Amino acid sequence: MKKLKVSVIGSTGYAGKELVKILVNHQKVELVHLTSSTFAGKKLAEVFPELLGRLDIRLIDMDLELIAPDSELIFTALPHTVSLEIVPKLLEKGIKVVDLSADYRLKDPLLYEEWYKKSHNQISKDWLSKVVYGLPELYYQKIKKAFLVANPGCYPTSVILGIAPLLKCKLVEPQGIIIDSKSGVTGAGKSLSLGLHFPECNENMKAYKVIGHSHIPEIEQELSNLYFGGDSQNKEGIKVSFTPHLIPLNRGILSTCYLDLKDDHKSEMEIGKIYQEFYQDSPFVRVFEPPNLPEVKFVAGTNYCDIGFKIDNRVGKIKIISVIDNLLKGAAGQAVQNMNIMSGFPETCGLNLTPTN
Amino acid sequence: MKKLKVSVIGSTGYAGKELVKILVNHQKVELVHLTSSTFAGKKLAEVFPELLGRLDIRLIDMDLELIAPDSELIFTALPHTVSLEIVPKLLEKGIKVVDLSADYRLKDPLLYEEWYKKSHNQISKDWLSKVVYGLPELYYQKIKKAFLVANPGCYPTSVILGIAPLLKCKLVEPQGIIIDSKSGVTGAGKSLSLGLHFPECNENMKAYKVIGHSHIPEIEQELSNLYFGGDSQNKEGIKVSFTPHLIPLNRGILSTCYLDLKDDHKSEMEIGKIYQEFYQDSPFVRVFEPPNLPEVKFVAGTNYCDIGFKIDNRVGKIKIISVIDNLLKGAAGQAVQNMNIMSGFPETCGLNLTPTN
Amino acid sequence: MKKLKVSVIGSTGYAGKELVKILVNHQKVELVHLTSSTFAGKKLAEVFPELLGRLDIRLIDMDLELIAPDSELIFTALPHTVSLEIVPKLLEKGIKVVDLSADYRLKDPLLYEEWYKKSHNQISKDWLSKVVYGLPELYYQKIKKAFLVANPGCYPTSVILGIAPLLKCKLVEPQGIIIDSKSGVTGAGKSLSLGLHFPECNENMKAYKVIGHSHIPEIEQELSNLYFGGDSQNKEGIKVSFTPHLIPLNRGILSTCYLDLKDDHKSEMEIGKIYQEFYQDSPFVRVFEPPNLPEVKFVAGTNYCDIGFKIDNRVGKIKIISVIDNLLKGAAGQAVQNMNIMSGFPETCGLNLTPTN
Amino acid sequence: MKKLKVSVIGSTGYAGKELVKILVNHQKVELVHLTSSTFAGKKLAEVFPELLGRLDIRLIDMDLELIAPDSELIFTALPHTVSLEIVPKLLEKGIKVVDLSADYRLKDPLLYEEWYKKSHNQISKDWLSKVVYGLPELYYQKIKKAFLVANPGCYPTSVILGIAPLLKCKLVEPQGIIIDSKSGVTGAGKSLSLGLHFPECNENMKAYKVIGHSHIPEIEQELSNLYFGGDSQNKEGIKVSFTPHLIPLNRGILSTCYLDLKDDHKSEMEIGKIYQEFYQDSPFVRVFEPPNLPEVKFVAGTNYCDIGFKIDNRVGKIKIISVIDNLLKGAAGQAVQNMNIMSGFPETCGLNLTPTN
Repeated sequence: MKKLKVSVIGSTGYAGKELVKILVNHQKVELVHLTSSTFAGKKLAEVFPELLGRLDIRLIDMDLELIAPDSELIFTALPHTVSLEIVPKLLEKGIKVVDLSADYRLKDPLLYEEWYKKSHNQISKDWLSKVVYGLPELYYQKIKKAFLVANPGCYPTSVILGIAPLLKCKLVEPQGIIIDSKSGVTGAGKSLSLGLHFPECNENMKAYKVIGHSHIPEIEQELSNLYFGGDSQNKEGIKVSFTPHLIPLNRGILSTCYLDLKDDHKSEMEIGKIYQEFYQDSPFVRVFEPPNLPEVKFVAGTNYCDIGFKIDNRVGKIKIISVIDNLLKGAAGQAVQNMNIMSGFPETCGLNLTPTN
Repeated sequence: MKKLKVSVIGSTGYAGKELVKILVNHQKVELVHLTSSTFAGKKLAEVFPELLGRLDIRLIDMDLELIAPDSELIFTALPHTVSLEIVPKLLEKGIKVVDLSADYRLKDPLLYEEWYKKSHNQISKDWLSKVVYGLPELYYQKIKKAFLVANPGCYPTSVILGIAPLLKCKLVEPQGIIIDSKSGVTGAGKSLSLGLHFPECNENMKAYKVIGHSHIPEIEQELSNLYFGGDSQNKEGIKVSFTPHLIPLNRGILSTCYLDLKDDHKSEMEIGKIYQEFYQDSPFVRVFEPPNLPEVKFVAGTNYCDIGFKIDNRVGKIKIISVIDNLLKGAAGQAVQNMNIMSGFPETCGLNLTPTN
Repeated sequence: MKKLKVSVIGSTGYAGKELVKILVNHQKVELVHLTSSTFAGKKLAEVFPELLGRLDIRLIDMDLELIAPDSELIFTALPHTVSLEIVPKLLEKGIKVVDLSADYRLKDPLLYEEWYKKSHNQISKDWLSKVVYGLPELYYQKIKKAFLVANPGCYPTSVILGIAPLLKCKLVEPQGIIIDSKSGVTGAGKSLSLGLHFPECNENMKAYKVIGHSHIPEIEQELSNLYFGGDSQNKEGIKVSFTPHLIPLNRGILSTCYLDLKDDHKSEMEIGKIYQEFYQDSPFVRVFEPPNLPEVKFVAGTNYCDIGFKIDNRVGKIKIISVIDNLLKGAAGQAVQNMNIMSGFPETCGLNLTPTN
Repeated sequence: MKKLKVSVIGSTGYAGKELVKILVNHQKVELVHLTSSTFAGKKLAEVFPELLGRLDIRLIDMDLELIAPDSELIFTALPHTVSLEIVPKLLEKGIKVVDLSADYRLKDPLLYEEWYKKSHNQISKDWLSKVVYGLPELYYQKIKKAFLVANPGCYPTSVILGIAPLLKCKLVEPQGIIIDSKSGVTGAGKSLSLGLHFPECNENMKAYKVIGHSHIPEIEQELSNLYFGGDSQNKEGIKVSFTPHLIPLNRGILSTCYLDLKDDHKSEMEIGKIYQEFYQDSPFVRVFEPPNLPEVKFVAGTNYCDIGFKIDNRVGKIKIISVIDNLLKGAAGQAVQNMNIMSGFPETCGLNLTPTN
């Protein structure tokens, strides 16, 4: 069997490393090049001794002339705004791209500029009409045919999957949605800062970016599409209140979402059935029936998104609990899931990962 | 100086132990008796070797005939519903009581029955008219004269202090309040269960008692009083949506509260001023000015409640972040603060604790 | 391809669960029966929601009449001394057994009695001449032909692999060996106790069983064999000083071993070469060259044993650092490795696990 | 009562911050100046919000002309080799100094040069004859009269206190001592590095500086003095094998020491008595009687050193377990203890700290 030639640009950040760890075991893939601006020239196992004996490869600089000819699909795990320039160059060479940055997630270039303080150029803007938002549970058919997939953010993945059926089926009011998310520390990335220094972070918790986290427009874009339909660019769309928190554990996001049920709302059993149907073809979404609720450890180390819910009749709200591994379903796992779909592989190929705990 | 003779009933649970640790260093108090149903007969330092050399005392059974004559004030740190019987017996003997259970927090005995599945008896019910809810920032004058103080719950302390000024000054709508609280594991107590076994709890997080946590009526009682005034028994009062979460750290609660601002709402600066004034005589509440926000480690090991907030103009809401040490301001520290006030001691006596980190 | 029919007796403890997690993905194995005394009657995914969608099986009681006819190989993950009775019954029916208990690790039945306070019966004693100690790096050829493999303890695995080449090549004195081991909390098992309650264990560390840990005779048996040769039953053999410590993390053992180098000892480079040669056919042992040293996170989630060392010329000693995942190379992973060898599968089949971090 | 005027040079590292936290509550001290090279100009509570309302002071640069005239005693918590220059300048102005660096701990300037790669200058060398090694349990009388006290290192404190009675009473062989120490992460300081980034450090453990940790000569100097007597400069003295490990918790050192008992050694009961007598006047050393052993959480947040031991008769060794809070008895707490003694205050003044857990 001929294997797909795959490279990873930015392979030594947390998401990049997870990509490598998955792809090393992926039976339909050959890892060709791994780039790292920090560690170019070193052997992979010098940087990640845990991979000693698993892959004997030397990290290289991001030299597109070298990487492109050898690669059929490339994962770009670069800082936001860097992908803007790099990704089109790869696409032009006929290489498929799964981009893990936020640069191609927002369909509206003005929204991107507003939230990321950087403008699209003409070339990147042209790609906005062709890029597919890489949430396979919503866009499977489009991903199948895509050349460029914008891999969703970690918080948006947990939130959108958590409440998509409610909005799609118009069981809830579209406004007044409150999202309280808690993330493990790998979500903050590998850059050093005092707040992520072990003794400062351990035995602590805090809210951060309480106003204006850049994942908000991505969440609102997709929730608006679900409720109002079409590729509405969220001009008059849903506005959410989103608060992320930093929690002292390595991996995992738990999002608690509060929505107002419409008056004639369904029972928990009926809603459970709607969820089950909505996700019946989605191998990585597991719906818990009340009173069972998901916990972070059920998904840590896996590509699952586990979802549970409860109706709070006293106040007419529904609470959704949604958990993912921020580095897997929230980043690298979902990226490989997208690659699988784009390449005609089984969706779960290489992703039947053993849960951590 | 003659010291106040103090005993602790239930001194080896987490709250009881914190009481002992504070009282050992309290200059105006003499610790007379410590009871423990589990460890009666043992020396305190056999159970808590960290207190070796600090207090040479033997734990005893809860024998009221023995304890009462020697004590002027007693802390009862008993499981909920046990205090119902015990507390009046102490009060009848002229002993002041700070009760750390939930049994006397709810003014409405029917509400107590509804949420705790246990009825007041005639004697305990009589005390409901005299008991004071022990939140000194709201009830300082009443606590001063009280014989029985019902020490607030940990979540309610963080929530009520966090949003009291907003409700008192009617800056927000009284309905639609959402409270998302995160607690360290000591908040779940010392009873063994698989969910609190280290490897199950570490590197995990989860929501629990998502509907119907017993702290809800206590929160609603006090928020209703603040907004609607009087000792309204919350018949037509405020209803909140409350979700507690278990987080892998020892101590600390962080409550994120979401409220709808009234249309003509004030600026962050004006609201900050209102908070500062509201708490100007409260030595244990510290208000952070935006954009600063409190973190759990600022209060761990202390009796402080730190509060910060942000206005989310996109959705017309205000977010309040409130943090406490669940065992101190959320239990034992606040209980000693109440004792200080009841006894005419300086409010902060024995409570200038060194922060943990 | 016909798959090997495998059952797990005791599948819901920490080691049993890891077995299931590995075997679910093992391409040459069909999981037939899983027993659990605590959870019999429940679906696996009710007990371990993380396995929802991975294996649809109901846990059953340990009914040998039911399990045996369907199984070709059985893993017994039972409390020590229970295996004594159960294992021979399985063997008699022609089923191969990998026993994860300590019951068949010691060749000398008197030593077993001394350390485990329980005697072998005639039948189990007979099996002592046929059982193979399941450390594949030392006994590969014997394991290949074995019907009963005694899977090594977690501490012994880290220690024996760590220092085997030194003893085998007589580079060190056989006496005066000091072993200081540190283990994550899953090593203490799933039974509830106050010392393993999250707030008691978190932010704490301690030595335990400082004298007389039951893994000592197993370590001494194998070290003596390595140094003195033969199946010497350690009558005049090596005596070690062993101290285990409990560390607040989920998985991982780090053993620091201190040995006296013989006078004419080799250089670090020469010793490194000896280690590399000793383990050249062992896919799960990775030797680090000085000054590199292994860390627990390099092996967590994998079946590797990583080994590093340093010569301390000032005192004429060599220090060995050896790390494993206590639940994998220290239990379930090694058990599957043994099964692979016993069954003629590739040694690494099903064990190319993705590292946790 | 006139208070002692005290300043802290280097008040925002981990040890400096602990000093401030203790001194804020110390009844016989007035904090005059706090310096910080990183945060000069900021209010203390801007840097450490946990101290809001406790001390209203602005951090300043290390301007000796400004600090010296106002101060009677100064704590210097500076990086190693910086104190060499600064300390004599303070002493010349008649200010007493407790130096938390390693610069004045070694009596032999050549040893200092060998281990710290920096030479004493003539002035600092002159002070070596007058400086007192600040371990009050050994040098109380000298500390009382000292102008310069070299505050011991964290590891040395745990080790020397742990085994001093054995060496002093010649119960053990002076050679072959093995020390295996485990430290929480605050021991590694506040400087950012990838190894201390939360996700790299959490759920990990490792040995580090396995050969040549700079605390070795300090340990050997004091152990040699204890065994061989005099201010022997360890020319022919004791050589130890020392290995530090990094453990994922904030505070605490646990040292496990292995020593060879002399042939006619005493029983555990007799040794316990020797320890009790040795430390009978030392309020911060607590000796545990076998089989009780100390744990890190017994001392976290306090100035205690807790010591336990066990005789391993099978191999003729004694194992000592010694625990301290590395930031308190291992740094700031001991420094204040030294100040108390130097100033004629009660030794425990300001140090009856509440244990963390």
